[in-house]
Amino acid sequence: MNTEEVAKKLVDYCRNGEWMKALDDLYSKDIVSVEAQAGENMPAEMRGIDQVRGKTAWWEKNFEVHSAKVGGPFVARDTFVVQFDIDVTENASKKRMQMSEVGIYTVKDGKVAREEFLPLAQQKE
Amino acid sequence: MNTEEVAKKLVDYCRNGEWMKALDDLYSKDIVSVEAQAGENMPAEMRGIDQVRGKTAWWEKNFEVHSAKVGGPFVARDTFVVQFDIDVTENASKKRMQMSEVGIYTVKDGKVAREEFLPLAQQKE
Repeated sequence: MNTEEVAKKLVDYCRNGEWMKALDDLYSKDIVSVEAQAGENMPAEMRGIDQVRGKTAWWEKNFEVHSAKVGGPFVARDTFVVQFDIDVTENASKKRMQMSEVGIYTVKDGKVAREEFLPLAQQKE
Repeated sequence: MNTEEVAKKLVDYCRNGEWMKALDDLYSKDIVSVEAQAGENMPAEMRGIDQVRGKTAWWEKNFEVHSAKVGGPFVARDTFVVQFDIDVTENASKKRMQMSEVGIYTVKDGKVAREEFLPLAQQKE
């Protein structure tokens, strides 16, 4: 698959909430996944499909997704960008939050080899 | 300025249509600017502030911008992403078009050192 084909499949999976299927079908076993910031028990950068599956399983277990708006993909060469507007509740705190971010994805040999997430900057007051 | 400060200033200039001011204020003299595809008389990749000023001048001369919606910035580390939805008419052909794309920007020493543009992929019929 070329970059655009991978990108469109990923967007389809995300629109259906099939995060784990996206990993199984589209991700390199050597995936590098980079969040903007480290979490409490989670480094910002994870390497390998097993670590990234772990992150996705943690996410599915700890958050209830009310809606996910998925924009894009925007595609050029080996890179694509997807925009996410996600409305979730954290199960532990019952805190409901709206998160906006983009993912920048790099495709190599028909698989996602790197993903990097960038949150929307705080807007001016 | 850090990445977020550069990103927010760039978004402000773009929202005001001040494309040339953004270059003067925020861009490295060694800027590398990469379009998704080469144009008729324009390579996909341009290097140096003079070439990029030339591209912007060409754009301002040849297109009338009716509206520009600028989303973001999305920021992490040395990278930020801005989304553009632009409604323009090409002066020569009088053809009106709606263009959606994102720019991925890399900041180095407080200046934009690289920008790369990715158009929205064609949607399914």
